[in-house]
Amino acid sequence: METSGLARLPRPPYYAVIFSSRRTDVDEGYQETARRMLELAAGRPGFLGVEHARDDGLGITVSYWRDEDAIRAWRRDLEHVEAQDQGRTRWYEAYEVRVARVERSYGFER
Amino acid sequence: METSGLARLPRPPYYAVIFSSRRTDVDEGYQETARRMLELAAGRPGFLGVEHARDDGLGITVSYWRDEDAIRAWRRDLEHVEAQDQGRTRWYEAYEVRVARVERSYGFER
Repeated sequence: METSGLARLPRPPYYAVIFSSRRTDVDEGYQETARRMLELAAGRPGFLGVEHARDDGLGITVSYWRDEDAIRAWRRDLEHVEAQDQGRTRWYEAYEVRVARVERSYGFER
Repeated sequence: METSGLARLPRPPYYAVIFSSRRTDVDEGYQETARRMLELAAGRPGFLGVEHARDDGLGITVSYWRDEDAIRAWRRDLEHVEAQDQGRTRWYEAYEVRVARVERSYGFER
């Protein structure tokens, strides 16, 4: 799957999960788990796409989903729950998750 | 204002504008205009906060607003409209704007 660049999505409405985070300086296991979570999420029913960027201060991952049930099911996925626990213990200084209903979208391409 | 890090926001509901972009290699005027737009946005009624990250592939800026009227008014701000034109002409290869209603949020802080 495409893991960098702009997500190709259907017309709204759909849902977005905005995950904004500041990392600790602990790297051990992070990349591997992040890749695995992306792979798992992409295989879930209702997953539409993902966009990610990180620079020094902040990381933002926006995943897009068909509906709230898909988001809830992903949040409770056992391997994902374990990764969330590890995230709090090791990799994240702080994070915020915002679940939002996308109502309209527009874009530009050169 | 705080321009890096996690935004401190009120409880939902509020609105998020997810602006995802790929840049051209034209830098001239970009930083200056980006800073000015942030300053202008932050001074608008209904502005709640902003989060930004960019790495090689993709930039994501999420601005948060009290309601859709605040978003519409900001989109039509004359100086902002001019910056949007310049963005399409010079700085962006492609972008996508998604307007979403944040319904719930939760977070973690070490």
